[in-house]
Amino acid sequence: MPLLSTSGARALPVVRVRGGQAETADDWLAAEEPLEIRLMWGDRVQRLAVTMRTPGHDADLAVGFLVGEGVIRSPEDVLDAFHAPIQGGQTDPNIVAVRLASGVTFDAGRLERHVYTTSSCGVCGKASLEAVGVITGAPLAPGPRLTPEAIHAMPALLREAQDVFEQTGGLHAAALFSVSGGGASCDLLRVREDVGRHNAVDKLVGSYFASGETVPPQAVVLVSGRASFELAQKALVAGISVLAAVGAPSSLAADLAREHGMTLLGFVRDGRFNVYAGAERLDLSASGDR
Amino acid sequence: MPLLSTSGARALPVVRVRGGQAETADDWLAAEEPLEIRLMWGDRVQRLAVTMRTPGHDADLAVGFLVGEGVIRSPEDVLDAFHAPIQGGQTDPNIVAVRLASGVTFDAGRLERHVYTTSSCGVCGKASLEAVGVITGAPLAPGPRLTPEAIHAMPALLREAQDVFEQTGGLHAAALFSVSGGGASCDLLRVREDVGRHNAVDKLVGSYFASGETVPPQAVVLVSGRASFELAQKALVAGISVLAAVGAPSSLAADLAREHGMTLLGFVRDGRFNVYAGAERLDLSASGDR
Repeated sequence: MPLLSTSGARALPVVRVRGGQAETADDWLAAEEPLEIRLMWGDRVQRLAVTMRTPGHDADLAVGFLVGEGVIRSPEDVLDAFHAPIQGGQTDPNIVAVRLASGVTFDAGRLERHVYTTSSCGVCGKASLEAVGVITGAPLAPGPRLTPEAIHAMPALLREAQDVFEQTGGLHAAALFSVSGGGASCDLLRVREDVGRHNAVDKLVGSYFASGETVPPQAVVLVSGRASFELAQKALVAGISVLAAVGAPSSLAADLAREHGMTLLGFVRDGRFNVYAGAERLDLSASGDR
Repeated sequence: MPLLSTSGARALPVVRVRGGQAETADDWLAAEEPLEIRLMWGDRVQRLAVTMRTPGHDADLAVGFLVGEGVIRSPEDVLDAFHAPIQGGQTDPNIVAVRLASGVTFDAGRLERHVYTTSSCGVCGKASLEAVGVITGAPLAPGPRLTPEAIHAMPALLREAQDVFEQTGGLHAAALFSVSGGGASCDLLRVREDVGRHNAVDKLVGSYFASGETVPPQAVVLVSGRASFELAQKALVAGISVLAAVGAPSSLAADLAREHGMTLLGFVRDGRFNVYAGAERLDLSASGDR
C-alpha cells in the first residue's frame, strides 16, 4: 500500500544537536509544494485555489477539494483529473485540472465567494456556521454502530500504516476504517498523508470519487491531529458519519457535528476517547455510565 | 500574563470513554470562530479574508495578518484596529477593521492576487517560492547568537506559560524569546495561542506592530507544532531571524530559510533539536562536531 510517492519526503543535510553535542546528518523533510487546482467544465477553465501540499495523489487531492466545495457530488460528476500539459509534451507536476462531466451544475457564484473571497460573519454558533458557508450533502447515513474496542484499535493501525512511510514526523494522516463484527472490530481500508491536514482528508475522500467509487457509508475517518471546523465540514460533505481525531476537536467542529448528526470523537489514543457528538452510534451497553 | 480571553475555550458536556467505561463530564474545547479582516485606507474599505480563529487578541491578529501580507511594514503604518461597529452602538466581535495611516502605499493588485486568488506555479524549489508569492521585508538582522542550552530551555518555558490557559489540548502556541548572557540564556517575552498555527504567529507579531513597537531583532520565535512554509514566510516578513519549532519543518520552509539567511530549528524538545538553516547563529564551539 504505497502511501506516498518518493517525492513525499526530501533528504536535507542538517546539524543534529543533542545536549551539547552536534553532528551533521541527513534528515528527511516532509515535502511541501504548491498545487494549483483548476476546474474545467464545458469550454471554461477556472483557476480555483493554490494549496500547499505534499506531492503525490494530486488528482485525488483536487477531486477531494471539489467534493468539499460541493462541486462534485457523485463519482459520475468527474470526467477526469490530470496534471496540466505544458510545452514539449510534458506535464506540470504542480497544476491539476479536474474536468467535470457534461451536465454537472454547481453554484459558481458560491464557489467564487467561498474559495476566492470572504463572507461577512455573524456573531457565533449558528450564525457563524451559516456565514462560513456550510455545505451539506445528502443527510448522513445512519452509519456504523461502534464499540469502544473497535475505536481503541484504530490509532495503532494508523500508526502502523504510517510507520513505513512517515520518516519525517511532519505529515498529517487521514485513514478510512470499515467496521465489522457488529461494531466490535475495524479494518484500515485506506490512508493518505500530507503536510496539510485538510489535504490528507481531501486526498482520502478524492481517492474514492476519482476512481468512480463512493465512500463506504459504514466507515469511520480517523485523523492524526486535531479536528477543526474545516475537517468536520469536509467529512460531512463526503457523507462520512463518524469523524475521529487523535487530537482535540474545536468548538465549531463540535457544533457542526451536533447540528448535522455526525459522530465526533476526540483524543482517540491510549485506550480512551471523548464523544463530542453523536453518541447514539456507540455501543456503550457494557460500560458503566456513572 | 493573560493569554486568552475567557472566550478562548468553551465547556461542552461529553461522554468520556476509558477502556470499556463511559461517564459523562464537561470538557473544554478550543473556541473556533470566523474572523473577517477588513482593510481601510483613505476612503476605501476592502474585505480581505476570513480566518477561523480562537477569539481573543483579534486586533493583533488582523494587524499581524497584514504584516505577513506585506501591507504593514512598520508600526507607524497602523492608525488603529478595531471591531467593526454595528447598529445600536455595538461592535461585531467577529469583524476587525485595520485602518492604515495616511500615505501608506502597498501593492493592492498583489494583495488581491495573494489573498483572493491563485497563482500559477512553477515546478519546485525557487520557481515555486516565487509563484506562491514570497514577500521579503528588509534583509534579516544578524540576530541573536545562541547556545544549545538556551534553545533546550525554550520548550519548557513555553509549556509552563501554556499550562495555565491550555485546558483544551487544541491550541497552537507561538512565543517570542529574548536571548541574553551571550546567547546562553533566554526569557519568554510573549506568547499567543490559537486553533490555527498561522493565527498564533499573526497574533504574536501583530501584538508588537499594533502597540507601536517593533519585534526585537535579537528574538527567537518558537512554535508549538510544525513549521510550514507559511509560518517561515510570516516570520521572515516580520524580521525574525530565528524560527524554532517543537515539530518538524517542511521542505519549503527549509528552502525559504536557507534562501533568506534565517535560522530554522526543528524538533526542539527533550534536550535536542535539528538545524535546517542558518547554523552560523549557533554557538556550537563546546560541541564535538563529528
